[in-house]
Amino acid sequence: MAPDWRQIASEKRDSVLALIPEEWRVPAPPSAEEQRDVTGKYIQQYLDPKEIEITETEATAIVEKTSSGQWTAVEVTKAFCHRSAIAHQLVNCLHEIFFDAAIESAKELDQYFAKHKKPMGPLHGLPVSLKDQFHVKGVETHMGYVGWIGTFQGEKGTGKEKVYESEMVKELRKLGAVLYVKTAVPHTLMCGETTNNIIDYCWNPTNRNLSAGGSSGGEGALIALKGSVLGFGTDIGGSIRIPAAFNGLFGLRPSTGRLPYEGMANSFDGAPSILSVVGPLSTSSAGLKLAVKSILQTEPWHHDPRVHPIAWRGEQEEATRKLAQEKKLTFAVLKHDGNCAPHPPLKRALEETVQKLESQGHKVIEWQPPSHVKLEEICYKAWNYDGGEDAAKAFALSGEDHKPNIMFERTPVADATEIMSNQVAKRDAEKEYMEYWNSTSELTGTGRPVDAVISPLAPFAAARPNKYTTSSYSVWVNVLDYSSAIVPVTKVDKNVDKAYTNFKPVSEVDEKTQATYDPEIYDGAHVSLQIVCRRLEEEKVLAISDYVHQTIHG
Amino acid sequence: MAPDWRQIASEKRDSVLALIPEEWRVPAPPSAEEQRDVTGKYIQQYLDPKEIEITETEATAIVEKTSSGQWTAVEVTKAFCHRSAIAHQLVNCLHEIFFDAAIESAKELDQYFAKHKKPMGPLHGLPVSLKDQFHVKGVETHMGYVGWIGTFQGEKGTGKEKVYESEMVKELRKLGAVLYVKTAVPHTLMCGETTNNIIDYCWNPTNRNLSAGGSSGGEGALIALKGSVLGFGTDIGGSIRIPAAFNGLFGLRPSTGRLPYEGMANSFDGAPSILSVVGPLSTSSAGLKLAVKSILQTEPWHHDPRVHPIAWRGEQEEATRKLAQEKKLTFAVLKHDGNCAPHPPLKRALEETVQKLESQGHKVIEWQPPSHVKLEEICYKAWNYDGGEDAAKAFALSGEDHKPNIMFERTPVADATEIMSNQVAKRDAEKEYMEYWNSTSELTGTGRPVDAVISPLAPFAAARPNKYTTSSYSVWVNVLDYSSAIVPVTKVDKNVDKAYTNFKPVSEVDEKTQATYDPEIYDGAHVSLQIVCRRLEEEKVLAISDYVHQTIHG
Repeated sequence: MAPDWRQIASEKRDSVLALIPEEWRVPAPPSAEEQRDVTGKYIQQYLDPKEIEITETEATAIVEKTSSGQWTAVEVTKAFCHRSAIAHQLVNCLHEIFFDAAIESAKELDQYFAKHKKPMGPLHGLPVSLKDQFHVKGVETHMGYVGWIGTFQGEKGTGKEKVYESEMVKELRKLGAVLYVKTAVPHTLMCGETTNNIIDYCWNPTNRNLSAGGSSGGEGALIALKGSVLGFGTDIGGSIRIPAAFNGLFGLRPSTGRLPYEGMANSFDGAPSILSVVGPLSTSSAGLKLAVKSILQTEPWHHDPRVHPIAWRGEQEEATRKLAQEKKLTFAVLKHDGNCAPHPPLKRALEETVQKLESQGHKVIEWQPPSHVKLEEICYKAWNYDGGEDAAKAFALSGEDHKPNIMFERTPVADATEIMSNQVAKRDAEKEYMEYWNSTSELTGTGRPVDAVISPLAPFAAARPNKYTTSSYSVWVNVLDYSSAIVPVTKVDKNVDKAYTNFKPVSEVDEKTQATYDPEIYDGAHVSLQIVCRRLEEEKVLAISDYVHQTIHG
Repeated sequence: MAPDWRQIASEKRDSVLALIPEEWRVPAPPSAEEQRDVTGKYIQQYLDPKEIEITETEATAIVEKTSSGQWTAVEVTKAFCHRSAIAHQLVNCLHEIFFDAAIESAKELDQYFAKHKKPMGPLHGLPVSLKDQFHVKGVETHMGYVGWIGTFQGEKGTGKEKVYESEMVKELRKLGAVLYVKTAVPHTLMCGETTNNIIDYCWNPTNRNLSAGGSSGGEGALIALKGSVLGFGTDIGGSIRIPAAFNGLFGLRPSTGRLPYEGMANSFDGAPSILSVVGPLSTSSAGLKLAVKSILQTEPWHHDPRVHPIAWRGEQEEATRKLAQEKKLTFAVLKHDGNCAPHPPLKRALEETVQKLESQGHKVIEWQPPSHVKLEEICYKAWNYDGGEDAAKAFALSGEDHKPNIMFERTPVADATEIMSNQVAKRDAEKEYMEYWNSTSELTGTGRPVDAVISPLAPFAAARPNKYTTSSYSVWVNVLDYSSAIVPVTKVDKNVDKAYTNFKPVSEVDEKTQATYDPEIYDGAHVSLQIVCRRLEEEKVLAISDYVHQTIHG
């Protein structure tokens, strides 16, 4: 008799934990009640001063040191292996650990540096974490499905198991990055939390009452704990931005076709529209730029047929920085998306951000766009074209139960005419939104339309478990295929961010969402916003979000 | 009782003919037997010397004259109106005529020039013809469907009828172009010939035994007769390149997302994959460049959400021209696509082209790519997702019969899982082909992969009516979304291009195709080839095809 899926899941979980050296074990991690926040001082107790120094250095500064011989790739790698191992034991953020392989490649990098007196590439010796959709040789990709354990994307005997590598992985290696862990995802990937039958639930390290976000939730949690300073996730409805926002990180959702997705595992592969994209999460804005610029330097359009041949556009970045310097950037702020109101801390974050930008001399107008509710409808239709078949197949492989907070429903499979009609609706919505954006040139005083929209990424600072009520603040960006970056703004303060009184919900989901707000539970959670630019404006959105962050905090 | 579709079609045809002034009528056009070739000297008999001079000047030279006050927009426009009217009477190439509106806008351009002493834009005073998928105010778009007459895309009372304009049309007007005719298409657009119940059949002006090609066949025939020197068509499986090739013209199939399709009429609108693209046809290679560069100058990505923000890349063009000058371009030649052999004149065109390039010092290798037959299968599946529903609906509006040479079959509508599986097959094929292309860096001696592939566009110089046996030589480019340009090479010479002896067909379609070759019938027909570059390499493919043309003819 085949073993029960619970047994397979638990064996897998144990096998990963077993890869953590004895001396790195955390015997009895505290409960959330005992220790809400496990970042910063808390996790530092498990590390030596040098490890703390290394892991609390941001990505570009690390690369500077590894590229000038100040730090070896091996010492940097070991520090991150250690810290990521602790992180995993505190919040369940990893699917795969491959420290030995990482240290091996770090050694090779050090040898390269010793021999050539120069770095291998712009990411020389930098440990980079990867969401468990990237195929990396030596380990498997189970993507949260028990039935994928021991297979290649659910199939046995393909010859690709533990050998095949995704395009991005090959490029990262060429750039000198060190790969060491793959991070947790919710099964199906369609969830703003990260949960599956293998790791159970990935908690928000800053406030373990809350979710680390999803679907790149393992990345969010790991980077929040500085078990990584730069990682890659994917985003089909917010899956990079949600964990970035929930964990006070920087994250970029590029437009489709900017970074290579070739050879990745995915849900409903081949879906015709609203495509998942790859993008970085980091402890710094500079880390995001380093990631994107480095990948583009490999000219990925020669190895991924869906990547556009658009090199890093320094001139777009410079033009944006110049506007910022001259205080001529113009913004729009989305205060309410017509679906539900943001929680009080988000409202405050918006107000504070607007106030700071205005005080710098930038114009901020109110964003009153075409219906976001309509965009959300188009999105859900597109996500559901296959009626849940792909996920159902994956669940059936092991017979596992699916977690209740996963978006998973069996509905009739859409046919071509239904798909085409939704595609037309999507294109029309893109055009309508584009012309609305163009029309703001009448309002900015610069003669140009607004440079960026400032918007919540979700109505909450982070979701409470099983209470991810709506994706309306994130999915509009995916439907329109805009570039968007997350900026950490503030933290929830229970003494300031009181619940609304006399709240008048505009919808059922609005009522439900607001009911999840509790200042006591949320206290200390990160509050972030997204900066949205237009399609394929990655350099611009990175420059603006960097500027906005400096303006808020600097 | 509603009038019969035959009557509606005939009234429409007559109403367009009635817009041709009496003095421009051709009382009894000769039969093909009487006058095979109606281009050049033949059509000149209907025109005065100044009209001949104007219409036989190529696009960039016309713009030079209209932009410097040597020619007025009105005189240029009138000459093209006259010549296009004659052309239509000889080969049935037009769907709509709007000479009065054209002369009005030409007058405005002349006034603008008189006032500002400068042209309105880079297309100042240039008449530009448009395939009948472009919506132009004042006239309708019937796209060959009797049921679309008097409607907007088959629908009545939308308020858009004869008012709405496609994005490209707005841009062309801004650039100073004069719009005056819309050209014939086959109903459904899915045909390598141009035929419908309104215009009947659009003949190849150089050899009226043959088809003008399709689906932008009206463009091909009109430009061959110099009733236009620059026009726009669309291409989903060869529809720009086929008429360009059959008529000895230059034509560009850009990759998806380079030029704006926004607001065009189309078949199976919203289809998820293998998208139709807009592109120019012209009497000159310089005309193509003028068209693309001018459109990109309007930054169409601000008005069409699907256009990539990629401005004209002069540096790509320059780098290519430099390689050409240094004789360092490398080519591959596709002699046989595994589906069927090219007719003898095509074989000769390939050999002559290769010989001339080699004699210039360029390396030419043989192209032995992954299966084109597989690409063809993926393509037909994608074209048939809706099982013919869209076309059936359009035919049902009037109850008209469809022409026998149209690709139209009712099959089961594909569902999402079938579509997704074909999409994955397509992406895998793109990747496989990309890596094959990359691998040629081992063979070129330059360290770079081949710069371009030289391939037939079809196995025949032009199709004989109802004998368009296969699209295999054109559709691979659409599946892979490559950039491709047509170059006229030679003409069929019945004394040289004898039928093959002892021909051994590789397939049924190969046998059928070769059986259609008859030197007597084909004598005098244009023979063209396509130059294929990779995705979004429009500047490169234009520069290379220009160079190849010069090398062959210069």
